[in-house]
Amino acid sequence: MKNSFPEDRYWMKEALKCALLGEGLTNPNPAVGAVLVKNGELIGKGYHSRAGAAHAEIEAIEDAKKRGISVCGSTLYVTLEPCNSWGKTPPCTQYIIREKIGRVVAGSPDPNPKNNPRAVEVLPSMGISFSWELLDEALFLNRGFYHRVLTGKPWVIAKIAMAIDGSLSAGVGDERWISGLPARTLAHKLRMVADGILIGAQTARVDNPQLTIRLVDKRYKVQPWRVILSLSGKLPRDLTLFRDAFKERTLVCVRMPIEMVLKELGSREVSILLVEGGAAVLHEMLKEGCVHEISFFLSAVIIGKQPLNVNPYSPANLSFPFALVKPSWEKLGEDIYCHGLLEKGSKFLESIRIEYASKG
Amino acid sequence: MKNSFPEDRYWMKEALKCALLGEGLTNPNPAVGAVLVKNGELIGKGYHSRAGAAHAEIEAIEDAKKRGISVCGSTLYVTLEPCNSWGKTPPCTQYIIREKIGRVVAGSPDPNPKNNPRAVEVLPSMGISFSWELLDEALFLNRGFYHRVLTGKPWVIAKIAMAIDGSLSAGVGDERWISGLPARTLAHKLRMVADGILIGAQTARVDNPQLTIRLVDKRYKVQPWRVILSLSGKLPRDLTLFRDAFKERTLVCVRMPIEMVLKELGSREVSILLVEGGAAVLHEMLKEGCVHEISFFLSAVIIGKQPLNVNPYSPANLSFPFALVKPSWEKLGEDIYCHGLLEKGSKFLESIRIEYASKG
Repeated sequence: MKNSFPEDRYWMKEALKCALLGEGLTNPNPAVGAVLVKNGELIGKGYHSRAGAAHAEIEAIEDAKKRGISVCGSTLYVTLEPCNSWGKTPPCTQYIIREKIGRVVAGSPDPNPKNNPRAVEVLPSMGISFSWELLDEALFLNRGFYHRVLTGKPWVIAKIAMAIDGSLSAGVGDERWISGLPARTLAHKLRMVADGILIGAQTARVDNPQLTIRLVDKRYKVQPWRVILSLSGKLPRDLTLFRDAFKERTLVCVRMPIEMVLKELGSREVSILLVEGGAAVLHEMLKEGCVHEISFFLSAVIIGKQPLNVNPYSPANLSFPFALVKPSWEKLGEDIYCHGLLEKGSKFLESIRIEYASKG
Repeated sequence: MKNSFPEDRYWMKEALKCALLGEGLTNPNPAVGAVLVKNGELIGKGYHSRAGAAHAEIEAIEDAKKRGISVCGSTLYVTLEPCNSWGKTPPCTQYIIREKIGRVVAGSPDPNPKNNPRAVEVLPSMGISFSWELLDEALFLNRGFYHRVLTGKPWVIAKIAMAIDGSLSAGVGDERWISGLPARTLAHKLRMVADGILIGAQTARVDNPQLTIRLVDKRYKVQPWRVILSLSGKLPRDLTLFRDAFKERTLVCVRMPIEMVLKELGSREVSILLVEGGAAVLHEMLKEGCVHEISFFLSAVIIGKQPLNVNPYSPANLSFPFALVKPSWEKLGEDIYCHGLLEKGSKFLESIRIEYASKG
């Protein structure tokens, strides 16, 4: 690959660390981090902290200037290809050109159709070297952004909390008795990256959950949409979701096909949708093939509660047993956590890499 | 504790290693190992290899003699209190006295009522020092023997093999597609320690399992009883269980209460019963409170098969969610393995320790 240097990977990982500071906080924008490097030294860094705030590239340039260092001729490492479109801020490509950045290295492509032409084309035409140093983590970080921008629908994470007798707990964050604190904390971290949390009407009725973010530092996080799928539309008016401080962020979808629900949420700029159950909703989502990623919590507990599985899983509705792609297992206190992508999710991210990061 | 020496624990663990060589092979006898120590050196060792063969103590004494070493005045470390009853062989206490063993240390008590009086009483009365060096592992090794001898019923291990969507696989050893090889191998090791394997009629019909021991070295292992619980008694005559080389080891229990099934199996000298499912049978056993131990296998797979759960788990039938006692988690290839005792099992073993190993 032309224009590539051995140190690129190191600096891109530094930029990723910056990007992660904005994870879950930037929607509908992607989370992006950037570092500026000159003569082998970091001279500035920044990240996009929330929608409306400066982009990571600008933050890094301003950081260097505050330190009194000229950015002219430096190399910009940015986890996502710089934008070339007018949003709440001018295109980053303009800053890069104006500030005479010497070289730009990007960790993942930005396929947003608003960028026309893209930075990968614009910057070289202005004499600025551009190359990729693709990081799986950078791609993964913005899976929701990618999916919404390209399909109009959110990336879907199914959260499954189970006891060893197969009993499901829909609201792992809310039903305190099933999981230990480390697992519950992780469950709230999952909500931190979500722009919507979806449950079934039965879960709403039985658990009366809050679906808010607790146990973690929320910072600027916007309360995710709380979406209830209902067949009847008959839900008690005194549910917490209808009465608490975030009641404006509760949506009820009555007898709406999953596809339509996802499009509706996409139009509301939900990039990552977290499906928290119960069993019937999880089944429906799996059956419709719209789940990309699974976060699975297991507790060594016997509950003896039948999963609220109205529509039994049926082999006729699903293709042959499918495994998570390279699942990770982790011990979380007394519990076990498994995380992995389904093939659909894995293939989607691979397609982004192939289709949008081959130029340059 | 009187007569106890710092090296006792070390030698008892050596004796345990011997005992483990007979695990699963000695039923209806317990698995026992022994080492003889003189002047700080091991002079003989042995284990009970199968019912009818010499007891561990005798093996150790014979081993020392073969080496040309006098056992007179040596210390015998034996994982289970020596027997004081006539079985297929004379009482070990008689050998110990005749061979002028100086001191006996036992790793767990033998509460078998056939020993009357017990070695803990007989040996000191004959001038032989006796003390305990209790090992949890030695107690655990013979949990089945203890339970059958004291209650007339087997110790029950429930094996649960699950996918992350809660689907159960009854015959983890037989349904090759759900678990990886390390998990399947462990499943067959479980069958190695069992004297009976129990399934429901539905599992028999749908999976048509062999319930034999494969993938591991079987040595002298007797094929465990294969027990089918059936409500109707109507089972296809061409099931493998009715036609293979072990068809004489297949039992069908028709409309029999669990308690009666367990007593029947106890009378057939089943010390450890492995319950392999399906869901209805597991539910029944849990509900009746007759499960002592759980071996749980999890695969990061979505099967989409509804558990064959005819009688839904019901919270009304079970006490409040109960956790495994100090569960262990282990990664087995791509799968997860969880093992632990239920309170019932944990308390039973504790009672043996308290009631039978307080003397001496």
